[in-house]
Amino acid sequence: MRGEVRQGRCGFAPDCIMTTQKGSFSMPLDAVLADIDKNADAAEARLIEFLRIPSVSTDPAHAKDCQRGADWLVDELRGLGFEAESRLTTGHPIVVGHAKAKRKDAPHVLFYGHYDVQPADPLELWKTGPFEPHIQQGRESPEIVARGASDDKGQLLTFIEACRAYAGNGGLPCEITFLFEGEEETGSPSLPEFLVRYRDELSAPALALVCDTGMWNARTPAITVMLRGLVQEEVVLTGPTHDLHSGMFGGPVVNPIHVISKIIADLHDESGRVALPGFYEGVAELPEDIAEQWRGLDFDQMAFLLSLGLTEVGGEAGRSVMEQIWARPTCDVNGVYGGYAGAGSKTVLPSKAGAKFSFRLVGAQNPKKIVESFRAFVAARLPKDVKAEFTAHGASGALSLPFGSEPVKRAARALAEEWGVPAALIGCGGSIPIVGAFKKDLGMDALMIGFALEDDRIHSPNEKYSLTSFHKGARSWARVLAALAA
Amino acid sequence: MRGEVRQGRCGFAPDCIMTTQKGSFSMPLDAVLADIDKNADAAEARLIEFLRIPSVSTDPAHAKDCQRGADWLVDELRGLGFEAESRLTTGHPIVVGHAKAKRKDAPHVLFYGHYDVQPADPLELWKTGPFEPHIQQGRESPEIVARGASDDKGQLLTFIEACRAYAGNGGLPCEITFLFEGEEETGSPSLPEFLVRYRDELSAPALALVCDTGMWNARTPAITVMLRGLVQEEVVLTGPTHDLHSGMFGGPVVNPIHVISKIIADLHDESGRVALPGFYEGVAELPEDIAEQWRGLDFDQMAFLLSLGLTEVGGEAGRSVMEQIWARPTCDVNGVYGGYAGAGSKTVLPSKAGAKFSFRLVGAQNPKKIVESFRAFVAARLPKDVKAEFTAHGASGALSLPFGSEPVKRAARALAEEWGVPAALIGCGGSIPIVGAFKKDLGMDALMIGFALEDDRIHSPNEKYSLTSFHKGARSWARVLAALAA
Repeated sequence: MRGEVRQGRCGFAPDCIMTTQKGSFSMPLDAVLADIDKNADAAEARLIEFLRIPSVSTDPAHAKDCQRGADWLVDELRGLGFEAESRLTTGHPIVVGHAKAKRKDAPHVLFYGHYDVQPADPLELWKTGPFEPHIQQGRESPEIVARGASDDKGQLLTFIEACRAYAGNGGLPCEITFLFEGEEETGSPSLPEFLVRYRDELSAPALALVCDTGMWNARTPAITVMLRGLVQEEVVLTGPTHDLHSGMFGGPVVNPIHVISKIIADLHDESGRVALPGFYEGVAELPEDIAEQWRGLDFDQMAFLLSLGLTEVGGEAGRSVMEQIWARPTCDVNGVYGGYAGAGSKTVLPSKAGAKFSFRLVGAQNPKKIVESFRAFVAARLPKDVKAEFTAHGASGALSLPFGSEPVKRAARALAEEWGVPAALIGCGGSIPIVGAFKKDLGMDALMIGFALEDDRIHSPNEKYSLTSFHKGARSWARVLAALAA
Repeated sequence: MRGEVRQGRCGFAPDCIMTTQKGSFSMPLDAVLADIDKNADAAEARLIEFLRIPSVSTDPAHAKDCQRGADWLVDELRGLGFEAESRLTTGHPIVVGHAKAKRKDAPHVLFYGHYDVQPADPLELWKTGPFEPHIQQGRESPEIVARGASDDKGQLLTFIEACRAYAGNGGLPCEITFLFEGEEETGSPSLPEFLVRYRDELSAPALALVCDTGMWNARTPAITVMLRGLVQEEVVLTGPTHDLHSGMFGGPVVNPIHVISKIIADLHDESGRVALPGFYEGVAELPEDIAEQWRGLDFDQMAFLLSLGLTEVGGEAGRSVMEQIWARPTCDVNGVYGGYAGAGSKTVLPSKAGAKFSFRLVGAQNPKKIVESFRAFVAARLPKDVKAEFTAHGASGALSLPFGSEPVKRAARALAEEWGVPAALIGCGGSIPIVGAFKKDLGMDALMIGFALEDDRIHSPNEKYSLTSFHKGARSWARVLAALAA
């Protein structure tokens, strides 16, 4: 699971997707689902085999294991009769596969996952070896314990198992391009160049399916439909040319810490709104029916705050935690520095002070305009003798699949059929770089569906994946593929 | 010279001290001055001998050299017929000496200096060995080059040479207690306890004479009469209990960097005044005659600013550089920190942010009240979910010898007689801890007179001391002692 994704915080389920009537494809789908049920033990055995490969991408000692992980996936895809190969990058290989649909006019989708895993340390906190998968009884379901069980090998295999069932039952309802990388846990350094290099091949699908997100809770599936954008700017201010003694110079000499602090203080007004001119251009109010649904959800705002040691909602006055994190833009200072920060005191009047700013964007906010507005805002607050130096640390707009878009509606209906409850259409306050890259480099929206649970301990010792997630995840993908093709 | 002392910035000379008529003691003083002139070569030889001792206090390898420096001073004082001994401390020894005055009712003064020196490195930048003193022709006078020449061995010996001349001409006009420490360059760690331990002995004098300050310029002597006080406070704010992802939590979760920035921004009003309630209680406006004199001095404010890369006077609107540094209180933030300050960016919403504040005090400002006002000011600006933790890093009031006080008037007159120009009565924006300790532990004011020049390169390679400073410094002390006793 991508580091920025957290599920189980809040969600909503429009009434429109609560219908659970089956479509015209129910006959072959029934056979596919029955096949998934019948082969559950074999699927678990394959997952165990995959988890035994210690494909830790950050550790050069495991480079061969990463290659093994890629090769294992190539073998799986080929075993299903699909084209597949492992392609070299400057880092770990990327697996690309292609599978035709049984019908010529079927939709074409790209499925993304990653075969690399986080390092397993601290090893002493694992109850069993991180690469010796075993099954234990969890609170609600048996679960498999191993590094990568949830992030992302188990999730990835839910999709392959769905494809396997279709391969043995007359063929796939969608044409599928597979893209499995081995550097997700190290920030996907090779991927952007790879997407550009193979753009013609990889941009053919109409939609990306991304599987490393989570459920709303153990009984409620979820689709992540909103991701906030991100603008990051750093500012370094210089006052006097060199650090000075604050006793000998303090008073008439401008202190850049005071100036940066004033700028930061001015960035929000009394009601907690961001004070940059034009900042809210392109920010729509949440439609009342959606806002109403969110308010009615089982999100315990006070429990959320208390878990952080807090007791009141900060930020924009009158707006809920859920609305602010999913649907409102923000400005946060992620770092501030200047002068002496060590133990004790030092009477320095510093030459420089700086801060790192991040703006989370929603809707149609224009990242470029926000950078311009920010820089003008800072410049307007500089005393004559203070210079500002700006560094851009990236700027990308918000991403969203409209709640009412066809893929979302169909996937939500399919998930509701599998789980017996409406799917939560959730937002994500963070950004998922791969989804931005699909949009930017391939012009492709992404449908984000995953079956991880909040307590899966990803990146931590004793990572686990619910076998219910694994089994019903495969069944869910079978239904989603059918729904997309219907 | 103490690190916080810098001379040559600005000064003033009230007309009242321009009178140069001699007092009734002119006959013996003339003989004393003639003796100083006659023995100039021998005095230089003694200085060279003293400078050859590498009494580097910070380096344990030179501990024996520090002891030698102390012993050398004991021998000098005893050679003049004074009592003297080197006393153990937990660090380097402190020399205490006593010399009676020729008259029973003479005033009693304490003379302070230090025999330790800074390390000499980087050695490769010295043109000759740092402990092989030699004399070269300077711009305006011959000068002696060696580590410690100006800071503080040359300055210290000006006083002993004056005493020597009196000892050979009928006796001292004042009773004198000598206090020479060997840890000034490492922050005087043993001195406070020493002052307390020998308080009865050391508090007998009425006035301290401190010799490690400087001239206003090479032709104008100076008395440092104002030292700003210093209150230092650190504040650490805690918002959420742990660092959070700014995407997943940014918006409704309070960011302590924003809060500390708002506090810093609020500390000054639009006109640059410190906004703490009660802050200016005890701050008197500079008397108009003194302000007038300062404005008329040869202080080039624009050159001062340009040397720092600045073009306008900051701080309190309408007040000059000189007035602000010497006679106005300040608030400066010496350090601010929170979140990520490394290269690049990190989308962290930090749990903590903090800042180090210093307040320079003048006049009768009460340090304790200012600490209280500051803490209340911070507390009043905390959102409900942000806690503040305060750490005190010291609080001391301003020190000053009133311009019109008898010792200042007499010393200024004596210096004017020696140098032929009025003495500058200067302020110092910084604090001098030893002067504060004399006031606090011994209840004693200090008269700060020294003959160092701004270009003496103290603490740097090729440190030097003008032989004019050395020779006329001794003559100056002879006149000052006579004037104090007149």
